[in-house]
Amino acid sequence: MFSPETYTARRAELKKRLGSGIVIFLGNSNVGMNYHDNEYDFRQDSTFLYFFGLSHDGLNAVIDIDNDRDIIFGDELTIDSIVWTGNLPTLHDLAAKAGVKDVRPSAELKSYLDKARTAAAPIHYIPYYRVEHDLRLMDYLDVRPGGAVPSLPLIKAVVDMRSHKSPEEIAEIEKACAVTAEMHKAAIRAARPGVTEYQMKAIVEEVATSHGMRCSFPTIATVHGEILHNHSYNNVLESGKLFLLDAGAETAMGYAGDMSSTCPVDMHYTDRQKAIYDLQQAASKAAIEMLRPGVPFLDVHMQASRTIASGLKDLGIMKGNVDDAVRAGAHAMFFPTGLGHMMGLDVHDMENYGEVWVGYDGKPKSTVFGFKSLRLARPLEEGFVFTIEPGIYFMPELTGLWKSQGLHKEFINYDEAEKWLGFGGVRNEEDYLVTSDGHRRLGPGIPMTTEAVEALKAEA
Amino acid sequence: MFSPETYTARRAELKKRLGSGIVIFLGNSNVGMNYHDNEYDFRQDSTFLYFFGLSHDGLNAVIDIDNDRDIIFGDELTIDSIVWTGNLPTLHDLAAKAGVKDVRPSAELKSYLDKARTAAAPIHYIPYYRVEHDLRLMDYLDVRPGGAVPSLPLIKAVVDMRSHKSPEEIAEIEKACAVTAEMHKAAIRAARPGVTEYQMKAIVEEVATSHGMRCSFPTIATVHGEILHNHSYNNVLESGKLFLLDAGAETAMGYAGDMSSTCPVDMHYTDRQKAIYDLQQAASKAAIEMLRPGVPFLDVHMQASRTIASGLKDLGIMKGNVDDAVRAGAHAMFFPTGLGHMMGLDVHDMENYGEVWVGYDGKPKSTVFGFKSLRLARPLEEGFVFTIEPGIYFMPELTGLWKSQGLHKEFINYDEAEKWLGFGGVRNEEDYLVTSDGHRRLGPGIPMTTEAVEALKAEA
Repeated sequence: MFSPETYTARRAELKKRLGSGIVIFLGNSNVGMNYHDNEYDFRQDSTFLYFFGLSHDGLNAVIDIDNDRDIIFGDELTIDSIVWTGNLPTLHDLAAKAGVKDVRPSAELKSYLDKARTAAAPIHYIPYYRVEHDLRLMDYLDVRPGGAVPSLPLIKAVVDMRSHKSPEEIAEIEKACAVTAEMHKAAIRAARPGVTEYQMKAIVEEVATSHGMRCSFPTIATVHGEILHNHSYNNVLESGKLFLLDAGAETAMGYAGDMSSTCPVDMHYTDRQKAIYDLQQAASKAAIEMLRPGVPFLDVHMQASRTIASGLKDLGIMKGNVDDAVRAGAHAMFFPTGLGHMMGLDVHDMENYGEVWVGYDGKPKSTVFGFKSLRLARPLEEGFVFTIEPGIYFMPELTGLWKSQGLHKEFINYDEAEKWLGFGGVRNEEDYLVTSDGHRRLGPGIPMTTEAVEALKAEA
Repeated sequence: MFSPETYTARRAELKKRLGSGIVIFLGNSNVGMNYHDNEYDFRQDSTFLYFFGLSHDGLNAVIDIDNDRDIIFGDELTIDSIVWTGNLPTLHDLAAKAGVKDVRPSAELKSYLDKARTAAAPIHYIPYYRVEHDLRLMDYLDVRPGGAVPSLPLIKAVVDMRSHKSPEEIAEIEKACAVTAEMHKAAIRAARPGVTEYQMKAIVEEVATSHGMRCSFPTIATVHGEILHNHSYNNVLESGKLFLLDAGAETAMGYAGDMSSTCPVDMHYTDRQKAIYDLQQAASKAAIEMLRPGVPFLDVHMQASRTIASGLKDLGIMKGNVDDAVRAGAHAMFFPTGLGHMMGLDVHDMENYGEVWVGYDGKPKSTVFGFKSLRLARPLEEGFVFTIEPGIYFMPELTGLWKSQGLHKEFINYDEAEKWLGFGGVRNEEDYLVTSDGHRRLGPGIPMTTEAVEALKAEA
């Protein structure tokens, strides 16, 4: 945890911004996998972590602005529990670490809120994402499941606060990025013909766990890099293929790293692989060069997209005017995702708050394929942390669909594109911070050029 | 998955046992860790797996006994999804693997149940354990959260069916046990001064993942074996200490292994460690020898308890008549847990069904400390699979509590017991099957004698 002053200052800032009312923060609970007590690894809600720091099951909290109270609702361990758990700090001790002195039993939360509702105090809460939250909002506030109305002033205030990372937050993200880089280096060293995707996943996650971290999201470890939503690990790495890893570590405090790497299963990239890999790197570089305060991330995404379209045209896969192709969205057959996303206490930071607030500052979002997957578009500000992850994919289903619809045939050379089906996909991903006058990569970095990747493989 | 015939036969057997009505099976859904799409590793409900085999998010199923229909309710992927996921088998294809031809959209489940309720057909469901289940029972059946009334005939039928493992289930459990044994051997090899508990956890879980398995429960990897509910991993392994691992693998079909081992951090056990370790092994042996159809597991637990009490008396830690001490529960200061629990599709098999049905065949359960933690007491039957895990623990909080209450002072030599505080705890655990005339250990086994453990460490 950060110091008590950090959490107290964050709560004071939120009170100042909202001015009045009551803010309720639902902590997360344990979830039974296949029965009640066989629990998933506990993950606290990130907004709860931001304002109250405590990563403990079964807590809720209130910031009562009108009465200037910060209260944590939760229950102390009983002596019966302590026999099984050993002596643990009390909830009062833990709350003090977050600068909170007012700790009350869970059972008192409902009546506290009832009183506030009777007094017609506005009650603010954020958009939640678990069924348990639905049920608690129903219990506490008589909100029917599906009928929650999160507070827009609260959303705007928290998004603004959490979007601007403080130096101590950046230091924590650097820790996550350092371990994330080790995960990728371990994978590059281990990838060789005959190894299974499950073994690669195991090697990568072993690195995170041994550092006392968890994975910040489900690992993608695949020879089918072109399948973007891919959480199966049943393939064997075969000579001639690329191996794509998208994985990250998360510190005990909840801050994430998120990187991707694409290495050859063999000791060297083939010429075709190198052509696409180098083009992906060119797109990354074109994007990174632009990162500084005031630049709309949409423009950065467009620049990366044009770089990819231009390179694919050189390879005969695309054709026509590059600017027109990208404006029309034709490049998205190969680069259907966004260039990057905000990162912090969530690997897709504040995804539950809604992209329009986190990535678009309330402005409307394109509905065009490709652009609609761009999570971040707004002008960059100092303290923003996000990923840069252009990719080039040869997706059989999408290619087949577009071809059958005759889509963008003035920009796509389908005969040529089809020759690349089976190639897979290339994505490399790093994490960046916007500084006062430019940008800085977070973490020690992973080998990015084909030469550096091959050198690391040669070492192993 | 097993063959379609296996699942069809199980459903037919259940129909025969229940005779009439509708059985609804809620599958599990994905749970967002810190936002909706950042999901925990999906775990299907075990009863759903038993009757329908499919480990896929978002399914429910119905066995309509009166109309002799088996129906899976779920939704096919859209073309938009397939672009991101690649071509996957359809739900109809998957259902065929479970012998089910009748697949309907999720949206039709409620009206199907409404019709059944109008016709006053009895609707059976099992005891569930996730908030998502509460909410679905509310939606489908107007059951208020907390107000669910699971069907006792269904509970009895399923507990009886799942308690008797078929040869193909036993073969599957053997697979889990084989990987579980590898996890423990990896830990014994790796334990040495300076290694962290997190590193041990990482090494152990790497073994499960690399075999395409998950952990069947949260790993316990600790130098504080005496803390029974211990999921922190922040200590460093120090010379002179014991390292206790309780960990298991679970196959892709959901069948669990569950073993414990206790090795020295150094190359050899100290004399004190060997004394307690050998006593734990004596208790295990005394228990295992008794395992055969017809023997109440309570008697086996009592025999292990007497062995422990007798050994502790030899060491001067307990005193008085051993039989009386165990009947009174005095040994439970050192062995407060049960001797074992049923194991199968859940590591604590069918824990959500209630111990009284799974472990006590509906008979009442002791409320005495120690005995009340015994999950299994009923007479053993051929096909039962369970753990054998006597332990000897020196728990400071429990010792302090009992001493302050003057509890069992005729059987416990508190002055002597206090000399062992700081020792930690010893537990070894293996998995057994009751055969027609005796028992069989499942899996290849792990080194159990102190000599065998030391030999494995010497190899590393």
